[in-house]
This record gives sequence, structure tokens and C-alpha cells, in this order.
Amino acid sequence: MPIITLTSDWGLRDHYLASVKGKILANIQEVNIIDISHQISPFNIEHAAFVIKNCYQDFPEGSIHIIGVNTEESDKDSHVVLYHHNQYFIGTDNGIFSMIFTDQPEKIVELTIPQDTDFFTFSARDRFVKAAVHLANGNPIEELGNPLKNIQTKMLFKPTVEEMLIKGMVIHIDGYENLITNITKDLFDKVGNGKKFAIQLRGVQIRSIAQSYLDVPTGETVAVFASNGHLEIAINQGNAGSLLGIAINDAIRIEFEK
Amino acid sequence: MPIITLTSDWGLRDHYLASVKGKILANIQEVNIIDISHQISPFNIEHAAFVIKNCYQDFPEGSIHIIGVNTEESDKDSHVVLYHHNQYFIGTDNGIFSMIFTDQPEKIVELTIPQDTDFFTFSARDRFVKAAVHLANGNPIEELGNPLKNIQTKMLFKPTVEEMLIKGMVIHIDGYENLITNITKDLFDKVGNGKKFAIQLRGVQIRSIAQSYLDVPTGETVAVFASNGHLEIAINQGNAGSLLGIAINDAIRIEFEK
Amino acid sequence: MPIITLTSDWGLRDHYLASVKGKILANIQEVNIIDISHQISPFNIEHAAFVIKNCYQDFPEGSIHIIGVNTEESDKDSHVVLYHHNQYFIGTDNGIFSMIFTDQPEKIVELTIPQDTDFFTFSARDRFVKAAVHLANGNPIEELGNPLKNIQTKMLFKPTVEEMLIKGMVIHIDGYENLITNITKDLFDKVGNGKKFAIQLRGVQIRSIAQSYLDVPTGETVAVFASNGHLEIAINQGNAGSLLGIAINDAIRIEFEK
Repeated sequence: MPIITLTSDWGLRDHYLASVKGKILANIQEVNIIDISHQISPFNIEHAAFVIKNCYQDFPEGSIHIIGVNTEESDKDSHVVLYHHNQYFIGTDNGIFSMIFTDQPEKIVELTIPQDTDFFTFSARDRFVKAAVHLANGNPIEELGNPLKNIQTKMLFKPTVEEMLIKGMVIHIDGYENLITNITKDLFDKVGNGKKFAIQLRGVQIRSIAQSYLDVPTGETVAVFASNGHLEIAINQGNAGSLLGIAINDAIRIEFEK
Repeated sequence: MPIITLTSDWGLRDHYLASVKGKILANIQEVNIIDISHQISPFNIEHAAFVIKNCYQDFPEGSIHIIGVNTEESDKDSHVVLYHHNQYFIGTDNGIFSMIFTDQPEKIVELTIPQDTDFFTFSARDRFVKAAVHLANGNPIEELGNPLKNIQTKMLFKPTVEEMLIKGMVIHIDGYENLITNITKDLFDKVGNGKKFAIQLRGVQIRSIAQSYLDVPTGETVAVFASNGHLEIAINQGNAGSLLGIAINDAIRIEFEK
Repeated sequence: MPIITLTSDWGLRDHYLASVKGKILANIQEVNIIDISHQISPFNIEHAAFVIKNCYQDFPEGSIHIIGVNTEESDKDSHVVLYHHNQYFIGTDNGIFSMIFTDQPEKIVELTIPQDTDFFTFSARDRFVKAAVHLANGNPIEELGNPLKNIQTKMLFKPTVEEMLIKGMVIHIDGYENLITNITKDLFDKVGNGKKFAIQLRGVQIRSIAQSYLDVPTGETVAVFASNGHLEIAINQGNAGSLLGIAINDAIRIEFEK
């Protein structure tokens, strides 16, 4: 059964999400519709990109992901379908795809299939669903439009590395108020190479990385590598974000001993 | 696979929704359960009606919609199943159906099937699910109870039209805080007939209707016809509701030039 | 089609829930994934237990319930699978199961299947899904690990009974702010045996139990036996929790006339 996932900032108290689901089911009977999140902060493509980037690889090959955040088309931002890592992504090329993928997508197609209605504020229902159903029925991506060479690039801040020093930032605060940074375990291992270190984040200093939140007592600050491989600062059973007074984009630095 | 949708004010942190889903699945194996919304404002049948009205037609024929808002039965408000526009609706006849449909429902049946338990506070689980499963199994609606002639009528405010003037109101504020009014494109076109106009909403005056939010710069007020055909006032990437200080039921007027 | 349910405190704005769903679907094609709730208060196993306890019996036999609250393993708290009342429960034995069941589970197995990754903060995705898929494919629970004799016991407060007096407490406040107590209809009937009574809760006194919220006028306080058999204090179409100033764990007493 084909899988279509939905990610959006529609929230859960309006008719938008149900309209899209109804429209899918009216066009294809056997399909598994999975909500990724509809609580993306309004208009926030960084948030949407973070969520999709961190879960799409858990889905089976051939999954079709509709992205309903900032979907409006313009001369600059076209509606596209991508094929990459054996999965399909339907959305608006407003820079979001460059934040989801670190490499160039395998196939990029600019949608030329027409909208279903004369209203242009609900592309997810009126255009993306058609593309998704087309793919879910096993039809080729090429029939949906014209090939494009590149996607728009909107750079995310990458950590900078100086001699024995990594400077990064907080890129996401999750529902527990855990602080997820843009520093990965790979980078940490490469730069640090097993040396002693100190993580600095506002007034907090942490000198070890735990395997689990439970490695520190309840209420204490802990650094772990999160399940997506990113360095995460948390408080065991507490809210690191508000208790440490940290917001998205705040700086974090790791100094290794020479 | 039959489709059963659920709309309620149960929220998502209690057991109510899961109980209903479990009960459905315990009684019919092959079924597609779709959440319309469970974030309806508590006891607010206007909100529920707005959401259902704007999405049910996107669902395939034969879909079965359970409405779990203000479900308690009384002498006045009976439990009913309707068949209309090729779809089924199960709920309490408390006026909500007159707000969903503009015309008289094709079939109205007052439920006579018994409740499953001695507790009378959870009709959705203990009675509506039985009716939904009956229909999902392809059984006739007539077997569920006695035919009724009419549903209860609870009038929604309709726009009033004077010479070259439409007076309407805000009927819904969505998750983006876009303001959806009760003035439709059809009415606008009929009264205005292509003439110049001014939309008045509190201190704001708008003299054109855009095709898309992007037709105005970020942060500016824009009028569009929403995907449901209703006139909508929004702020491009902003929160019109709080920024303009508008609440549900606030007046909007459109004056056309003579 | 096997049913896997998910209960967690992940919320709906992160990638955690989607990762788990993707992982399930990548390992088993035909499965019905049902969300029980992902709005459990963070780290609150009492809340999770209350929700699961009150809905699991509505699900069909053989349903598999993954519990993603406080999942971290320790010497004391092991990962387990239980079989009880014809259903499967996968989670961490931190006391939660003793709050869901009143009797000893039929089968208890300590998981010995390995984790999928080197990150130990996301057991639901990296270990529980594997166990769930194993069961969903019809394989025996015994293959997942070693049999255990007992689960950890964490006692919930039970009502105390003195002569013609029941002392209980509020154990849950639902989305309507209805107050659910730990006093059941069975206990009430047994102790009261049809005698007159007075329910005391803060300043409020109630001398009858209604069949339905509608038995009192809008805005008035009402006692009912909720659909789970527990005594519930509500305000018809109002918010009992804030209006009466009641919090979880507050005392309630019922005095019967001699």
C-alpha cells in the first residue's frame, strides 16, 4: 500500500488537513496517509525542514511526502516534485529542500499539472494531492512536469571549526525543551579525537557526554548525542530551554584540550 | 475500504478518542478511520459545523462522519443519522446539521438502536460507533431507526444586502489567524457586478481582492477568496486576528461604487 | 490487519512520532497504527497509565500497545513486553504497568533483543518497534526475551472506606476540565447501598448523581458516573477544574446517612 505523508503548519482545529486527506482518499482507495506534523510553526520552513530531515529516512522506499508549508507559487518559487534517497517530496521550491538534503536531489521536476480550482491559496489540496496520487499509482515522476537542474539554496548555519574549537548553535528546541544543536557526533569525534573537552552554553559548562538522560540525577543538565546524531543539551526530566534561558540560534562552543 | 471520520471536542490528551477508535476496530476490521478535528472548541457546534461543512465534500461517496460534539440526547435533541450528498452523518440533532447543510437532508433517521452501556455521557463510543459500523458493513440506513421529516434549525447569520452594500461578519478565525467571513465570491460577484469597491473591517480598508497572499508584501493586509469560496482577510505571513484586533462575529462591510 | 497503538509524551511538533511510524511501516506493510495520545504530560506515567487503562479494553484482541513515556532503561527499570487480557504492551517496567492493571499480568518478558542504534535515548523507535513488528507478524512473545515473575509496583492511592464514609481523590482532569475521581460506581453502591448521601469537594456539596450532564442547567455542578465507571464531578458546559479551583490529588469525600 503506497504511503503518503503530510507535513504542514495547518494546525488541527481547521478543515485544511481533513480536506487534503479526503481529497487523497477520493482519488486513491488503497493508501496509507501518515501525519508527520501539522504543528510546524506558521510559515517556518526551517522547522519543517528539521522535522522532515530527521524522520524521512525511517520511512520505506517509495514513500511520498507532501510538504504544506509556504506553498504559494511565485516566479521565483515553483512547485516541484523531487526524487531522492528512494523517496518522493512534493512542495514549493522556496529553499526548504536545500535544508532537508545535504546533497543534490537525484531528480527535480517542476510541476506543470494544472490546479483543480480557481483559488490559489490551497495548493496542497488542489495540486500536490494530484501529484501524490499520480506517484502512488506507480506513474513516472517525469510525467508531472519539466525537469529542473537545481533547487533553490537557502543556507543553514554550519558549525565553524577552529583549532581545537567547534562553534555551533541551537537549531531546534523540542517538546521537552531539549536543545538540539547543529554539532554532530561525526564532527565532534573528528575534531576532538578523544581529547578532554568543555561544552559552553550560556552560563553552563559540561565536561562529559552521557549515553542516556538517566546518567545524571533528575533536574541536572546533561549532554547526549540525540537519536539523530546531533549534540543535545537536556535536563533530566526538566525543561532545558526555559530553565537555562536558551533560544533557537543561541551559540554553543566546545573547546578541546590541547 | 469504508471511511469513518471523527470530529469532536475531546482534545488529544484523554482516552476518549482512542476508545472510539478501538471500539470501531473491534467491530469492523477493514476500515479507514480519519480524524477531521478533535480540537473543536468545547461544546461549540458552530465551530464543528464550519469545519465539517468545509471538508466533507472532499471525501469519497459513502464516507461516514461521526460528530462527537454536544452529543447528549434529550427530548428535544435526538440522535440521528443523515444521508446527504452521498455521505452519512451521525450525531445529535441539536441544530448542527442546519449549519452544515444549506438544503434539506435527503434522509433523516432517528436512532433507535440501543446504547451499549448504562453510562449516558459517551454516546459517540456507545451508540454512534454501532451505527457507523452498521453502515460501513453496507447495511441500509433505514434499519437504524425511524424516519424523521425535519432536522432542528439553528440559523447562522447570513450577510444582508442593501443597494450596493454587503454587510457580513467574521465567522471563523483559523490557525494562522486569517479571518474567514460569511461573504462568498458568488454573492460578491452578484452584488458588485465588477464595480469598484471598498472592504471595511474595523479601521482597515481594502480596495482590491488578491489571487494569493503573496500579492502583497510580507506583513500587509490582503483580501482573498479562500479555497472554500469565502472572503478572507489575512496578513501575509502575519496574524490578522490579533494584529487587527478582530474577533468572531465582528462586522465587515463592502461598499460598491455606484 | 494487526493493530499497533502508540502512547507518548512526544507531542506533535517534533519528528519523534513520525520516526516511529516510518520505522514500523518500513518493517511491516499491513498494519494499522493508531495514536492513543502523544500529549501525555512530559514524564508523567500516572497520566499515561490513566489514559491507557481507560481505553485498551476497547481495542480488539491481539492489539499491540507501545508506551513511549520514560522509556529509558536502567538496572531497576527494564524493557518489557506483557501479554494480558488478550493484548500486548511494550514499554519500560518503571511502575506504569501496576497502574494500568489491577491484577498480575499473564505473561511478562524482559526484552533481550538488541537496540538498532548506538543512541540510547529513543528506545521506542530503536527497540520497541522491533518487538511490536515481531508480535504483529504473529511470532511468539517468548522469543523476545526472558520470562519475568513480577512487574514493579507503584501504588496508586485507593479510596479509603470508613463506616458510611468514602474518602477518595481527584485522579485526572480531562480536556473539558471534568474531575475524574478514584471512586467507582461499584464501591459507591457497595458502601452506600442505596442510602442518601452528600458528596463533598472543597466548598461544593452534591446530593445526587445524574445520568447525564444535561440533568442540571448549563453552568451548574453535576456528579455523574463517567463512561469508565468512575465518579466524575463536572459543570454542564463549563470548566469544573478552574471554576471550582480543584487540582489533581485534591480530596473528595462521600458521607452516607446512617
